[in-house]
Amino acid sequence: MSSLKRLNLIESHLTSRFPTIPFDESLNDYRKKGTPINKTLLLESYLGHFYPGIMERRRIMHENPLFNHFDEAELSREALRKRIVQQIAAIYPSAGLNYKVVKEDYTKKLELLYGMADYDIALAVRLLVHLVLYTDTVTNLGTAKHLNLVDRAYNLQDYGSFGMTELGHGSNVASVETTAVYDHSTREFILNSPTATSAKWWIGAIGKTANMSVIFAQLFVDNINKGVHAFVVPIRKNDASHETFPGVVLGDCGKKIGLEGIDNGFILFKNYRIPYDCLLDKFSSINPEGKFKSAIKNKEKRFGIMIAGLVGGRVSCTSGCEQDMRNGLTIALRFSAVRKQFSGQEGPELPVLNYPLQRYRLIPHLAKTFATRASVIYSLGTNINTFFKRLEEDPECLEVNEFHAVLSALKVVTSWYGIACLQECREAVGGLGYSSYAQLGRIRNNQDVMATWEGDNSVLIQQAGKFLFKQVQKTFKGQKIQAKTLKFLKTDINEVNLFKPKFENSEQLENEAVLLEIIEYRVNILLHQSLLKLQENTMTSIDMIDAWNKAQVYYIQELSKAYGELILTNDFLRFVNELAAKDQVLGKIFRKYWLLYTIGVIEKSLVTLMENVFNATHVKAIRESIMRLCNELAEDSIQVIDALATPDLVLGSVLGVSDGQIYKKMVETVEKGKRVYEKPEWLPLLLKVKGIKN
Amino acid sequence: MSSLKRLNLIESHLTSRFPTIPFDESLNDYRKKGTPINKTLLLESYLGHFYPGIMERRRIMHENPLFNHFDEAELSREALRKRIVQQIAAIYPSAGLNYKVVKEDYTKKLELLYGMADYDIALAVRLLVHLVLYTDTVTNLGTAKHLNLVDRAYNLQDYGSFGMTELGHGSNVASVETTAVYDHSTREFILNSPTATSAKWWIGAIGKTANMSVIFAQLFVDNINKGVHAFVVPIRKNDASHETFPGVVLGDCGKKIGLEGIDNGFILFKNYRIPYDCLLDKFSSINPEGKFKSAIKNKEKRFGIMIAGLVGGRVSCTSGCEQDMRNGLTIALRFSAVRKQFSGQEGPELPVLNYPLQRYRLIPHLAKTFATRASVIYSLGTNINTFFKRLEEDPECLEVNEFHAVLSALKVVTSWYGIACLQECREAVGGLGYSSYAQLGRIRNNQDVMATWEGDNSVLIQQAGKFLFKQVQKTFKGQKIQAKTLKFLKTDINEVNLFKPKFENSEQLENEAVLLEIIEYRVNILLHQSLLKLQENTMTSIDMIDAWNKAQVYYIQELSKAYGELILTNDFLRFVNELAAKDQVLGKIFRKYWLLYTIGVIEKSLVTLMENVFNATHVKAIRESIMRLCNELAEDSIQVIDALATPDLVLGSVLGVSDGQIYKKMVETVEKGKRVYEKPEWLPLLLKVKGIKN
Repeated sequence: MSSLKRLNLIESHLTSRFPTIPFDESLNDYRKKGTPINKTLLLESYLGHFYPGIMERRRIMHENPLFNHFDEAELSREALRKRIVQQIAAIYPSAGLNYKVVKEDYTKKLELLYGMADYDIALAVRLLVHLVLYTDTVTNLGTAKHLNLVDRAYNLQDYGSFGMTELGHGSNVASVETTAVYDHSTREFILNSPTATSAKWWIGAIGKTANMSVIFAQLFVDNINKGVHAFVVPIRKNDASHETFPGVVLGDCGKKIGLEGIDNGFILFKNYRIPYDCLLDKFSSINPEGKFKSAIKNKEKRFGIMIAGLVGGRVSCTSGCEQDMRNGLTIALRFSAVRKQFSGQEGPELPVLNYPLQRYRLIPHLAKTFATRASVIYSLGTNINTFFKRLEEDPECLEVNEFHAVLSALKVVTSWYGIACLQECREAVGGLGYSSYAQLGRIRNNQDVMATWEGDNSVLIQQAGKFLFKQVQKTFKGQKIQAKTLKFLKTDINEVNLFKPKFENSEQLENEAVLLEIIEYRVNILLHQSLLKLQENTMTSIDMIDAWNKAQVYYIQELSKAYGELILTNDFLRFVNELAAKDQVLGKIFRKYWLLYTIGVIEKSLVTLMENVFNATHVKAIRESIMRLCNELAEDSIQVIDALATPDLVLGSVLGVSDGQIYKKMVETVEKGKRVYEKPEWLPLLLKVKGIKN
Repeated sequence: MSSLKRLNLIESHLTSRFPTIPFDESLNDYRKKGTPINKTLLLESYLGHFYPGIMERRRIMHENPLFNHFDEAELSREALRKRIVQQIAAIYPSAGLNYKVVKEDYTKKLELLYGMADYDIALAVRLLVHLVLYTDTVTNLGTAKHLNLVDRAYNLQDYGSFGMTELGHGSNVASVETTAVYDHSTREFILNSPTATSAKWWIGAIGKTANMSVIFAQLFVDNINKGVHAFVVPIRKNDASHETFPGVVLGDCGKKIGLEGIDNGFILFKNYRIPYDCLLDKFSSINPEGKFKSAIKNKEKRFGIMIAGLVGGRVSCTSGCEQDMRNGLTIALRFSAVRKQFSGQEGPELPVLNYPLQRYRLIPHLAKTFATRASVIYSLGTNINTFFKRLEEDPECLEVNEFHAVLSALKVVTSWYGIACLQECREAVGGLGYSSYAQLGRIRNNQDVMATWEGDNSVLIQQAGKFLFKQVQKTFKGQKIQAKTLKFLKTDINEVNLFKPKFENSEQLENEAVLLEIIEYRVNILLHQSLLKLQENTMTSIDMIDAWNKAQVYYIQELSKAYGELILTNDFLRFVNELAAKDQVLGKIFRKYWLLYTIGVIEKSLVTLMENVFNATHVKAIRESIMRLCNELAEDSIQVIDALATPDLVLGSVLGVSDGQIYKKMVETVEKGKRVYEKPEWLPLLLKVKGIKN
């Protein structure tokens, strides 16, 4: 603890108008209920290869008074933005990133961002826009001549932004309206924003900060539209004046639901000329004779590669969801262990975490958090270096497409997990959760945006669906399924229909093989139901797109989510097995979490399963298992959260403190608030309303 | 439109840096898709007896520049609080409320609050705490000598608050720690807050405003605890000094997730002496000899009556949920009709409201909104005067208990409807929904608190369950069920098991009698499953409370929600029938909404229904109906929303404007933002980070 923080603490003791608050043993009591576990081992396993990087960031934040959520609560938007730049300056150099380091191991970049996201998604995202969206795009789509820009980016000599979304186009990026017309006479491009809706919108770091931006625009060569291309464009003078260049309009998008520390802005171009080298020309170029050529002929595929810069963002999104959930649950669980309300017919009031309902509300989210973490480690973390390598070698290969599909499904599923989890945490904490000092509002409002950015969930999930159908289509032509994650697919409906669930009670249900079979069956049956629905729709639809759109609800969207949850199930099981090999006690606890996660996934598809193979006996077993697992795991949950929680000062929640002194912390924080004991500034108005002469 | 507003509009045209934005016909085009309807008739029916009152409030707000959400976006907490007092002063006198008026027709009070909630729940709640929680409690629990306080309250000479919740006790009010010790020697009560957790917490209007408060405290007479009683207590001098009385500590609870215009605060008492007359002594009193007596012997029942002041709050809560949903859906639906993204295989981009998925995401919430409205009109609005009358005559009678149960179920069900609806609206609007100027964040964050205040949902819903069980228990003693809302209950499980759903396809499903039967069956089967579960639990539980707690998940909570949804279904059907009698076109449209609502309710219980009587054929019919109804109703939805929407200036959302110029409105609003085109205040810091010499 810094001396400043210590001083503040002492001060508050001396000035409080509250009765003295005795030490509250409730959290310790709950802690003792749990099985003692090896917390360090658990944390190391849980953070995986990100462990050292995240711990280093925690250390930096812990020691630095700049990282203090309570101070931030009352900051104005501009002050918050200043604070976040100070925080980036304090933490970024520790990562020692440059082109070479990242090329060798991309996870070095991720571990920095994940460490920052422990504190606040906003902090990580503020840097991510520059470090991932901007820098990766220049790296992946640029050529040798752009390498100096990459170096400048890693040195923070340039601060970049990512000009893709427009006011009128978010999901359908292929239809952005910004134009880049090639002028061969000067070998320049002329950027224009022909309409208000073509304004680049929501662009992080544009409002105030960035001097560079990657701009996605329709490229015209000889009046022919060559599709969307990316340009790296200077937008503000990189000197003390920080002036916007003539021909560019940059503004601030104003107040948002959350993430106020990020200066999202808009960009307009008016006949803004940029030299040829601004084109990121790895896949498309214009030769000195003015002739356009592209390594990838298909416009749609070319576009798919153009947005490869989003990969790091989506991976971080998934990790961010896990962090938001874990932070939210740390707060909700610790609170629930301390908060006492009602008793049995006799005896003292009980911690609300004793109630089966509260356990059912929270513990399944903890299981989802762990599943998400497992996919961040394996499907995403372990594979991302291979992905970038394969992307460079062959951007159209199966592995690249499969990674995109897996990532799309995971981003979507986990962001919705996160939104549901944070809302539940907020409510489970009751009225006190409505205080800003609980931090659940901030985390929830930050999590909220995960559903609509980096690919809107309802649209992005269709990418996973398309991948599945493309792979299946190949089998209709006699090819075998090559995709690693789809080996289990059964393309023959008769084979699928042979399936019978192998349990009649909860004991039989809680079996790895039995559960995995159901998880796979679920994808298979949804696939066939979706295929059937598509086939039906072709009779009543104007075209294939129409048929596709009409098969989203109940079918393709459910299929794609089921695919994502299959990945999560498998990754989570791998995590449990590796953990069990290291520590039996932990293995036993986490195997229960895996059971709860997997049975919970099955429960959400009960209607589909009952349409086909399940009956009332299966439902009964599922509900019994869920309630039993929630009850058993709740007893251990404080121990487990202790191991995995973000440290108090980084988490910054009065209700989530590890010493369990939640009331004390709440009172101290409220008493340090703005004008807490002062009369209203608007007293004269109040007196007037009440008819009191002043 | 006020001249000031008009002026602002003209100004922005002259200074914009954006390309001219042509008139966008999209919303009009969508409007034309719908059946032309009698909008005035619809609105009149929809607002019911609240129609004139709400319209009058809209008129006042519309003409007054104080009511402007965009101005409020950038206000500090204190400035927002000032603004809200100004708004109350501007709108309150129009209601002409006094003791007599309210006694004759309580809905006069509600119509004022509902009118205000059109603008913002926070505005209504800011007044409600005083006008309902405080004033109704004094009215209902006080005696003749307290009438002058009621008059003072209606004249705003006193501003009251409601000191029930404590830092340590929310749901379990019966265990509050504040004490009121009767001192017979002076015929006074001595109020004390013995611990920090006994601080009254979250008390609206306490932070800065109130001079009076109703305080709930454990009454001690001759060292014997007589249970929780309510006292009406002066806390600040009612003069120009506005000083807090010695012995009282009043402070501000600080920053919240939403409702920042409300000055929630805390209260501590230190040997604060109040005269005998502060006891609200209608049901309990202490005679001049110092002897305590109470009209209601049972402590628990007495406590139930003590909190009758919450009724108006819970009723308003339910109405507020409807308003939040309607406002959210106005924004999301208009946006979806204007927003175009992607096309078919050929042709221009399509409004996102054309996509079946978007329709499925939004239209069922519209149906829920209408169902909620119907219950606000009938089960609550029509019955509330009777409730207060019966409460006075016989506070322990069946009608009073039944109204409490219905209200509990409705408050819980509709507040969760609202939270889900607002989250869906927020996401359905995509990234632009994350702007504060869309207002979806504000509405969502205000709606959020509905789940945990005025009775935490998870606890309050148990009140409905308890009522159901009590009624059923009576039948075991041979009595008939008297409760009007429970006439359909079948206490013989064999009779319940005779039920067979009378549909095999979606055409047969869309039938009033068929659906109502299922809705009733659903309550019956859940009741018997719950009874069975309770019986099972008695074997494994330490006492009845434990058995009860173990039967919440899957059983009693579901039963109670199903009861609430049965009330909603019936009220909604009554609304449709009355509307159809007036206008066939509207009747036809709203009958479809009723079908969608009711089938949606059934869909949510499919697992339970499939455990018993449904099979795959029923599921297919249900899904088909839902998709078809969503598609048909989406076509009419803009017409319907036009009729019911809160007016533009009161709604205040750039994305929900009735002329459909959403991009224009967004750009205008953003350009009027704070420091939109200015360099950052923290430029020196940025230059330093980038290594640029200043």
